[in-house]
Amino acid sequence: MALKSSRRTFLAGAASASAYFWIPKAVKGYGAAEMAALTIDQVVKPGISKWDLDTPALCVDLDKLEKNVATMQATLKQNGLASRPHAKTHKCAQIAKYQMKTGSVGVCCAKLTEAEALAAQGVENILMTTANPSKSKIARAMLLRKAHREFIQAVDEEQNARDLNDAAKAAGLVADVVIDIAVGTRSGIPAGDGAIALAQLVDKLPNLKLRGVLSYDGGGQHAKGFASRKERTLKTLAPNVETYAAMKKSGLNLEIFSGGGTGTYNIMQMIPGVTDVQVGSYVFMDMQYMAIGGERNDAVYDDFAPSLTVLTTVLNNRFPNRLTTDAGAKALTLNVPTAAVIGEPGMTYNAGSDEFGAIAFQSPPSKNYTIGDKLELIAPHCDPVVNEYDQMYGIRGDKVESILTITARGKSQ
Amino acid sequence: MALKSSRRTFLAGAASASAYFWIPKAVKGYGAAEMAALTIDQVVKPGISKWDLDTPALCVDLDKLEKNVATMQATLKQNGLASRPHAKTHKCAQIAKYQMKTGSVGVCCAKLTEAEALAAQGVENILMTTANPSKSKIARAMLLRKAHREFIQAVDEEQNARDLNDAAKAAGLVADVVIDIAVGTRSGIPAGDGAIALAQLVDKLPNLKLRGVLSYDGGGQHAKGFASRKERTLKTLAPNVETYAAMKKSGLNLEIFSGGGTGTYNIMQMIPGVTDVQVGSYVFMDMQYMAIGGERNDAVYDDFAPSLTVLTTVLNNRFPNRLTTDAGAKALTLNVPTAAVIGEPGMTYNAGSDEFGAIAFQSPPSKNYTIGDKLELIAPHCDPVVNEYDQMYGIRGDKVESILTITARGKSQ
Repeated sequence: MALKSSRRTFLAGAASASAYFWIPKAVKGYGAAEMAALTIDQVVKPGISKWDLDTPALCVDLDKLEKNVATMQATLKQNGLASRPHAKTHKCAQIAKYQMKTGSVGVCCAKLTEAEALAAQGVENILMTTANPSKSKIARAMLLRKAHREFIQAVDEEQNARDLNDAAKAAGLVADVVIDIAVGTRSGIPAGDGAIALAQLVDKLPNLKLRGVLSYDGGGQHAKGFASRKERTLKTLAPNVETYAAMKKSGLNLEIFSGGGTGTYNIMQMIPGVTDVQVGSYVFMDMQYMAIGGERNDAVYDDFAPSLTVLTTVLNNRFPNRLTTDAGAKALTLNVPTAAVIGEPGMTYNAGSDEFGAIAFQSPPSKNYTIGDKLELIAPHCDPVVNEYDQMYGIRGDKVESILTITARGKSQ
Repeated sequence: MALKSSRRTFLAGAASASAYFWIPKAVKGYGAAEMAALTIDQVVKPGISKWDLDTPALCVDLDKLEKNVATMQATLKQNGLASRPHAKTHKCAQIAKYQMKTGSVGVCCAKLTEAEALAAQGVENILMTTANPSKSKIARAMLLRKAHREFIQAVDEEQNARDLNDAAKAAGLVADVVIDIAVGTRSGIPAGDGAIALAQLVDKLPNLKLRGVLSYDGGGQHAKGFASRKERTLKTLAPNVETYAAMKKSGLNLEIFSGGGTGTYNIMQMIPGVTDVQVGSYVFMDMQYMAIGGERNDAVYDDFAPSLTVLTTVLNNRFPNRLTTDAGAKALTLNVPTAAVIGEPGMTYNAGSDEFGAIAFQSPPSKNYTIGDKLELIAPHCDPVVNEYDQMYGIRGDKVESILTITARGKSQ
């Protein structure tokens, strides 16, 4: 899909100039309310520079995001795989729909409220990768399934499968289910006979329909160096592949074998049976992913461009070799590696204070910064940073093109 | 103020039983929407247990919170000081108003949007402790001042004072100002002649009114051990006290000398001139503050009770010596010390994963936990945890009494 047409995908509404409010140029530093007044159908009045945004402001470079999506779609397609992007990264209905329009077979959600919020904004084909632990959540998942036929629910325990079957029956439907086969000790049922028995139970329960399995290796995504990631992935998934093959041999319906992520998107085609990859961070990238190294560049993982940034303002410049900014832990989280200041390799950034960022100069900065000057930061870890904001600004060049609502912000239930 | 009457302060509206919706008892795990349906004027239908809340759920024990507030008000009063609590901790208009009703002289805000959001919900007497760095924010601060006569703005730089004077003039008012005298290198103007000159400038500018100074030692609040906190506080504030005395001697109007926090609330009366303390975390407490030790208990800082908790649900119990829960970094942040599981001293909690918590058993737990069981956690660091949620549940005993909106959640600008 060409960037021009994908741009039109973002620009959902036509902009009518007459409806814009006028804000005098002398007063810049547009906050959320002022930007809303300059916006129609999420499209912002042309010509507003990102540098005029009030800070901290979460921004996404749309050219980079669209290129990241195009690269992922093309690579996976070439490798015979589909993408089923994880929406926990962006929590944004607009981006989820863009991923679907550009070829993804569905999106994943980690939490039920996240799925509910995105579905309410028209996102279809949601796969809930987390088993719902309570009868109340199971019942709500089946309400969601009733309104959205393509909704798929992960299950990792027999009682949970029986409860889900009861809830599906109560809702008058047959629910689509995947088995979460564990990698490590976080979620899922361990590979082997127990997982096969669970799949057979799901297959037999009258109100459930087995669709396949998922196996996500969270830790493996950030293993440093392509060779070690590949080795780890092939090794950790080996028992799961064996279990999947045994399920298949026993005649179970397994249309889906979902797994992998941004760190292993170009490894998953080596895993027999895998159908789609749950890539998340590739749309934005962050300091954590850049640090793992890629197949073609061992120093920096540059398969995808860092599209997500936080704009911040200098609050204090009077102490030697340092600056204080307005973006602390509430704007950037405490993840490491910490934020990088774009264009200032001599600066280190510490977001350890809740409200303030502390920049130290390891070498002289490119200019003398004064109070009110703005800087742009690459986020430490994209998922939790996005969750701190109600909206992202969609940037094209240096101009604000649109406002992207973070639909499922704070939906951690 | 007695707890009974302070309870009534929380219970703003009368509950009309007929207006409640009925949710069948069999389906527990109330989410935000279901709880809203059980709530009138923020008061929840009596009898709902906190253990029926969907998780992760942010809860505040109202008895503990009210006792913390009463202890703080009484101690400061006895020491001849006032409290000017920092609202960045709770970001909640209801709690800010409760602090004011129980004797606080005002509240502090760290960010302009935080002040705007709280003022819009009727919180008065706000002191902005951060200087606003841009003309747009200065103009907005003066709009706020126009609607709220008791609004006070911190200033730490001459140009900033001149810009504020211009904005006050444009708004047709005389704005109240305090000088932020630095402690450390984060914000403020260093103690000494520069600070005195800035105070004199503010005094001379026709549209500003000097009200006093503030000096906040963020790092000093968490120094371990009462004796070392006291020593550090007396030492770090000594130049500021000297500067304050020189300002006073020169005839400047200094009604306010604000500083200190929860870690130094019982030290600030030893600082000559101090009028009020910017205590924040004392309402909730957290693992960080509990670890610093108090005057009467060197092991645990127990002057105030931990009122803020996060309820979480067990998602997986099949791996040896561990549990997976639904509260990860998006529900608890990455702050350390990590969350503590109430009643389970043998458990360590790791919220390093975005979506999931990992509990490890250092010694056997009190019972066998199964999927769906709930646990209650003390938060690592109260301020940024509160900022992850849209609301807190006010708990009395084990019952949900009210819903407290986190008015300024995400207001980091």
